Amino acid sequence: MRGVASSRGEAGAMKERRERIGAMHGAGGEVMGRLLSEHILPKFALRSAGPVGLDALDDGASLSLPDGEVVVTTDAHVVHPLFFPGGDIGRLAACGTVNDLAAMGARPVACTLAMVVEEGFPLDELDTILSSCAQILWETETALVAGDTKVMGRGELDGVVLTMTGIGVAQRVIRDSELQAGDVLLVTGPVGDHGMALIAAREEFHLESDLLSDVAPLWPLIGELLAEVRITAMKDPTRGGLAAAVNEMARKGEIGVELDEKSIPVRAQVRAVANLLGLDPLQAACEGRAVLGVSPADAQRALEILHRTELGKDAAIIGWVGEHRPGKVVLNTSVGGRRLLEMPLGDPLPRIC
Amino acid sequence: MRGVASSRGEAGAMKERRERIGAMHGAGGEVMGRLLSEHILPKFALRSAGPVGLDALDDGASLSLPDGEVVVTTDAHVVHPLFFPGGDIGRLAACGTVNDLAAMGARPVACTLAMVVEEGFPLDELDTILSSCAQILWETETALVAGDTKVMGRGELDGVVLTMTGIGVAQRVIRDSELQAGDVLLVTGPVGDHGMALIAAREEFHLESDLLSDVAPLWPLIGELLAEVRITAMKDPTRGGLAAAVNEMARKGEIGVELDEKSIPVRAQVRAVANLLGLDPLQAACEGRAVLGVSPADAQRALEILHRTELGKDAAIIGWVGEHRPGKVVLNTSVGGRRLLEMPLGDPLPRIC
Repeated sequence: MRGVASSRGEAGAMKERRERIGAMHGAGGEVMGRLLSEHILPKFALRSAGPVGLDALDDGASLSLPDGEVVVTTDAHVVHPLFFPGGDIGRLAACGTVNDLAAMGARPVACTLAMVVEEGFPLDELDTILSSCAQILWETETALVAGDTKVMGRGELDGVVLTMTGIGVAQRVIRDSELQAGDVLLVTGPVGDHGMALIAAREEFHLESDLLSDVAPLWPLIGELLAEVRITAMKDPTRGGLAAAVNEMARKGEIGVELDEKSIPVRAQVRAVANLLGLDPLQAACEGRAVLGVSPADAQRALEILHRTELGKDAAIIGWVGEHRPGKVVLNTSVGGRRLLEMPLGDPLPRIC
Repeated sequence: MRGVASSRGEAGAMKERRERIGAMHGAGGEVMGRLLSEHILPKFALRSAGPVGLDALDDGASLSLPDGEVVVTTDAHVVHPLFFPGGDIGRLAACGTVNDLAAMGARPVACTLAMVVEEGFPLDELDTILSSCAQILWETETALVAGDTKVMGRGELDGVVLTMTGIGVAQRVIRDSELQAGDVLLVTGPVGDHGMALIAAREEFHLESDLLSDVAPLWPLIGELLAEVRITAMKDPTRGGLAAAVNEMARKGEIGVELDEKSIPVRAQVRAVANLLGLDPLQAACEGRAVLGVSPADAQRALEILHRTELGKDAAIIGWVGEHRPGKVVLNTSVGGRRLLEMPLGDPLPRIC
C-alpha cells in the first residue's frame, strides 16, 4: 500500500490511466515548468514574503522580514508510510517546520520546499501531499517562497522526501538550554501519538487501532502563550519523544528535572500499543506538542491559556526543575518509585518523520 | 562503484572493518548526537551567524544579518555518481547554494544542510562528502547554522541526498527577468563541463576522458563584478544548461536574445563527448558559471574584471539583447546560419545535480 489514494480500491484500468512523475519532471526544462505552474504554484496561496516570491521562479526569493530576531530551521522528512492516520508527509513537513520555529519562540514567515520524488510516483498522490502541506502553511500564514524538484529513478528512492526550511521572526528567541531551578515543566498535550500511530499503520505490525498522529502546527498556540507568559526554555519532542526532549533540556541547562509520570498525559490507546510492543510511550515521537518551562508564578496562567485552545486542551504540568542531579531526568513513577529517565539511544522506529 | 573511496581498491578485509551508517544515526538520540559531535560539527569552521548557531543543536538557529535585502534559496542534490571528476555531492551542494545566492546578487551568509543517508553507507565516504561541503562554505565565508540527519533503509535510497538552503544579503537583488534591449550578454566561463563530465563518469557510457566538472562557488567572483558594474539580469545555468537559462531570461524579460555560437566558450572535450552522444553542449549543465547582462558601456569593463580572476579567465561576450522576437533566443551558428535555440524539455541526464 503506497497510501490512501491507492488503498481506495480503484479498478486496475483506472490505475493504468494515472499520470505519473517522470524523469523530466525534475529536469529543469519545459516539463518541470508545467509541473510547477499546474500542480505546485496554484496550491500555495501565499507565495511571497518580499519583493521576489515563488512566482518569479528565479534562483531564489527575497524577503521583507518584520522586526525581531531571524530564526531558521531545516528538516528532511522521510516518513513511511507517506499517508498515515491523521496526516501525510506534506502535513508533517509543514508542521515540522512551523513547530521548530515555534519552539524557538518565532512566528513563521516564509519557507522553502525541496522535493525528491521517485520516478513513477502517482501525480494525484503528489497533489494530495502538496495540498496537505499548503493547508498548514495557509493556516499559519507562512509563505512558500522558493523550492526545488528532483526525480530519482525507480529503485533509487522509496516514495518522496520533502525537505523544508523555515524562516521566522522572534521577539525573544527561546532556547532549549535555559531551564531555571524552580521552573515548572508543562507539556501542551498527550505524548507519543505520532510514533504509535505510525507503528499501528505499518503492515508488518498487524495492529488495528484508531490512533491518529498528533501532527499539528504549534503556532499560533505558542504565540498566544508568549503574549502573556515568559517561557524560559522550550522544545518540541519529535524523534525520541518526551524522554529525548527533556533529557536534552536537562543536559544543556546543566540542571535536574523531575517528572511526575502520573501527570504526563498519554492516551490509553498509545499506552496499549506501546505495552504490546514493549516500547516506552515517553520515547515515542510527537509532531504537535511542545514541552516548556515557566516560573511557578506563571504556571497556572500558562495552563489556562493552553486549556482554552483546542490543541492545548489536554495540556498538563508534568514536572519541575531543581539544582540536584544536574543533567539528569528523574521519573517519579505511577507506582510510587523513582528512576532515571535515560536519554534514548534513538527513536525505536525508523522513518518516523 | 560507489565513489572514490571504494574505487581505490582496498582489500576486502579492510572494507569489512569500515564503519557504516546505521538507522540509529538518524534517530534523534545518543547515537545521532555522537555523529553530530564527532563527524559533522568539527568539519565546519563557521557554525554561527548570530546568537544561536549550530553548536547549540537547538530546534533552529538565529541570525544577525547585515544590512540589505535578505535572499533565500534551496536545492536538493541527488547527483549520481556521488563522487565525480572534479567534485562530489558535498562540493556540489555547497556550490549550488552559494551560486543561487550569487545569481541573485547576494553575498552568502548562512546555510542549512539536511542529509538523508542510506543505511549501510560508509562513514568515511560521508566524511569526505561533508569535508568537501565544508571547504566551499569556508572559502565563501558561509556559516552552517542548522541541519538535520535522516537515515533510510537499504533499498529505500541510493546513497545520499543533500538539501541545502542558503541565506544571503544583497545590496540590490538581481533578477533573471530584467534584461534590457541593448544589453550585452556574458558568460563567466566555458559551458557544459559539469553535464559532460558526469556523463563521461557513468559506467553505462563506457567513455574515457579527463573532463572535470566546473563545480565552483561563484561568490566572490560575482561580488567583484557587482562592486564595479551594474548587472541587469543574471542566472546560473544548471539543468538544461545555457540554452535553458537564456531562454528563461528571454521569456521572463519578454525580450529577444541573439547568441553568437562561435563566441560561446565550449571546451573541445565537452564538444567531443556531446557530439559522440548526439547531445547539444549548450543544453549541458554547468555548476560554476553565470550568464549575465550588462549595458554595452559596461561590457568591456565586466570582461576585464572577470578575466583577472581564475574562475572567470575564459569569460566571453556571447550575445546581445534586442526588441525583435520577444521571448525567443536566436543562435547565429558557427557555419553562418541562424536558428532558434529552443527551451529544452529538460536536462537530457537524470540526477545531474
